Amino acid sequence: MPGERIVISDVVPQVDCGRWPAKACVGDRVSIAATIVRDGHEPLRAVVRHRKGRARWREEPLRFLGSDRYAGSFPVDAVGRWQFEIEAWVDRHAAWLDEHDRKVAAGQTDLAGELAEGEALFGPGDLEDWRAAADALGTEERPGAARGGPLPVEVERERARAGAWYELFPRSWGGLRAVAEVVPALAEHGFDVLYLPPIHPIGVTNRKGRNNAEHAEAGDVGSPWAIGAAEGGHDAIDPRLGDEDDLAALVEALRAHGMELALDLALQASPDHPWLGEHPEWFQHRPDGSLKYAENPPKRYQDIHNFDWDTKDRKGLWEAFRAVVLRWCEAGVTVFRVDNPHTKPIPFWEWLIAEVRKRHPETVFLSEAFTRPALTTLLAKAGFSQSYTYFTWKNTKPELVELVEQLRVWSPYLRPNLWPNTPDILHATLQQGGRPAFECRLVLAATLSPSYGIYSGYERCENVPVRSGS
Amino acid sequence: MPGERIVISDVVPQVDCGRWPAKACVGDRVSIAATIVRDGHEPLRAVVRHRKGRARWREEPLRFLGSDRYAGSFPVDAVGRWQFEIEAWVDRHAAWLDEHDRKVAAGQTDLAGELAEGEALFGPGDLEDWRAAADALGTEERPGAARGGPLPVEVERERARAGAWYELFPRSWGGLRAVAEVVPALAEHGFDVLYLPPIHPIGVTNRKGRNNAEHAEAGDVGSPWAIGAAEGGHDAIDPRLGDEDDLAALVEALRAHGMELALDLALQASPDHPWLGEHPEWFQHRPDGSLKYAENPPKRYQDIHNFDWDTKDRKGLWEAFRAVVLRWCEAGVTVFRVDNPHTKPIPFWEWLIAEVRKRHPETVFLSEAFTRPALTTLLAKAGFSQSYTYFTWKNTKPELVELVEQLRVWSPYLRPNLWPNTPDILHATLQQGGRPAFECRLVLAATLSPSYGIYSGYERCENVPVRSGS
Repeated sequence: MPGERIVISDVVPQVDCGRWPAKACVGDRVSIAATIVRDGHEPLRAVVRHRKGRARWREEPLRFLGSDRYAGSFPVDAVGRWQFEIEAWVDRHAAWLDEHDRKVAAGQTDLAGELAEGEALFGPGDLEDWRAAADALGTEERPGAARGGPLPVEVERERARAGAWYELFPRSWGGLRAVAEVVPALAEHGFDVLYLPPIHPIGVTNRKGRNNAEHAEAGDVGSPWAIGAAEGGHDAIDPRLGDEDDLAALVEALRAHGMELALDLALQASPDHPWLGEHPEWFQHRPDGSLKYAENPPKRYQDIHNFDWDTKDRKGLWEAFRAVVLRWCEAGVTVFRVDNPHTKPIPFWEWLIAEVRKRHPETVFLSEAFTRPALTTLLAKAGFSQSYTYFTWKNTKPELVELVEQLRVWSPYLRPNLWPNTPDILHATLQQGGRPAFECRLVLAATLSPSYGIYSGYERCENVPVRSGS
Repeated sequence: MPGERIVISDVVPQVDCGRWPAKACVGDRVSIAATIVRDGHEPLRAVVRHRKGRARWREEPLRFLGSDRYAGSFPVDAVGRWQFEIEAWVDRHAAWLDEHDRKVAAGQTDLAGELAEGEALFGPGDLEDWRAAADALGTEERPGAARGGPLPVEVERERARAGAWYELFPRSWGGLRAVAEVVPALAEHGFDVLYLPPIHPIGVTNRKGRNNAEHAEAGDVGSPWAIGAAEGGHDAIDPRLGDEDDLAALVEALRAHGMELALDLALQASPDHPWLGEHPEWFQHRPDGSLKYAENPPKRYQDIHNFDWDTKDRKGLWEAFRAVVLRWCEAGVTVFRVDNPHTKPIPFWEWLIAEVRKRHPETVFLSEAFTRPALTTLLAKAGFSQSYTYFTWKNTKPELVELVEQLRVWSPYLRPNLWPNTPDILHATLQQGGRPAFECRLVLAATLSPSYGIYSGYERCENVPVRSGS
């Protein structure tokens, strides 16, 4: 014979029936609500039970909103995976008092049977005693209690939600040491996160030229996203930018000014990446054994090789990237901006982010998911702290209203980070709108979302496109 | 390391994350849709797999709607509990052809590597062979297939959704034999279901008088909902209405005219119900051992005793009602109109309806849930075929629009049955609107929902209220 007389449903926050966690930050009270239904008319009581990990459950009361809906909240005071569940039961003490009072109000006097019931319920005493005890008894005694949940909530630190980002290419500024010198000025302007594109050695084979030219000229430095050379791969620093000590000095300068360092995580390799020799099975090959380069037909990216996510050594590949991320965490990196995460498997991200947070729970991950909405949101659900959005291309009022409405719907699991420009995106509005456009777009980015960022040069209204119309 | 690269979500129809079944009728194609996401850009294929009970799975293809959304349908050809699930995989054959054709279109000619890949994928042959084979191979080979579901669908016969009902009190027409004589006329008018309020013996102790007067006068027949007397309880026929043969004759008359019989199922007892003596533990008592009567303070219903759903003999009580329902099923009753189901436990209804359908899968249950929306819908989810609605009180255009919008939202699990009047509800619109109001309300009931019904007298526009303003 089936279960509970009390049925709990429509619990929020809830992402895909609890498959993924809702998101919150340390210091929040997580607002929850649920529909709680039982046959008949007796009053119900309900609480939200909550805990971090396997800690002891605590609880907070829910209040009745009307129409079988209840709401409440619980505080989260530490990063990590929390869970909550709803517990509801009949408040027989309140029910008895309510029925009794309605009868008295209607002038009924033959209440001996009712008072005997009251004594059986409350124990010896009179009406005054019972009224005084009703609230406590109604909380303690939980006849027919039913539970709904548990449901997960991922709690991160505040930086996962709110922050002002500044992006720069360290080679344009003279390397990591020189960048450290501008940290006080960046902090003065209110930036919280300094984001550097890949700082690893850049491949020389098939190196691209300026503005994506197919062949590099002498002296062309190549794309920082073509990762890997004789000097090392994803775990190395390009010696032209500095060394471990320079990175440590930059991290220390940022820390001293209340800022933190974000590195790029771009999971692809130049033809000179050490792993091509050490782990050829991690890369895509043709049937004749030759290595494939990246392409999006008819476009070809001969300076890039993609990893083969269907490799037979999936464990080895995944663990290698875990080691890369942990290596940078240990060097003081607290934020990762992930390049094109939508071209790598979702289960990989879910695993990687959880693994990194086991050891460095403060780590923040920004998803550069400029892709279809279902995939953008799935990456957010799978663990990314925050996500780029299409803000960069949304300039008219109707476009912005639509964007913000969409972000509101996604808000239980996707936190936006709005960028008016990036190294490779300069919208026509900025190319043609002059200083007023730059000011307007910055204010919109900084006020429509708690996280926003700019690419260096924005503050000088640099508005010259690579080509007219690009 | 976690699971599938393909993530299936937002599958419809889906009621409370699959806790309850969606509803369909024999002969339907059940429309389904799902969001299916994988990293990257390779084309996916998907099917819906479906089966009744534990039968072999069958499948139908899904079509791509755009934006990672897929849709399809499957046929249901028998009553019972069905289930469906989504299966999706990468179509590597279509992906290869697509990439190849984009390269050719871009004028690329060095495609030896691509063709070697093609041969590895398709087997020996040329492009023509591969194109011809692509569709079949893409269906047969299912690399990395992922599944979403299964989700339940309860399939009933068409009468669960569509039918015209006529309600009458057989004692006003001269008993069951006399009612059998009017069946041809009812069938002629297009009615599908004849619904009789309780036909059981009526209690005499504390019998109510006319129009709910507290004391009966000599000759008052009492309320048919005060069930049980010396002649028997829920499984007996009031001898004043007829006997088993008369009921069988009525059932046969209905069957001969393509109609069926609906009985009332009212789970309450008069003070003279045989079960009060046989099973006192099934009823509510005060601490002094005295029997409680039904009340909704300050109202008292001294002619009614409610069952104690918290009885220690829950099994006995539930099984007794199962026996009652099966007894009437065996007498040819195929439809039950359930009185006040919202004052009995939801798990009881879920169990009872499933138990009855094991033996009589054609049985239809109508819920008289004039209660809060969350409880009305929960009864529908728990198994009732169809439900009364607030149509009776919705008369203005805005009220009707709101009602129909609400019914549309509920349509995956709640089937409405619209009644312009009932034995105890005659809205002011009908009291004051004359024949035009009766005609208008009948057309609305019959066209806003596939199921509707009237209480006898409606066809003669009987519009005299018990009291002015009642």
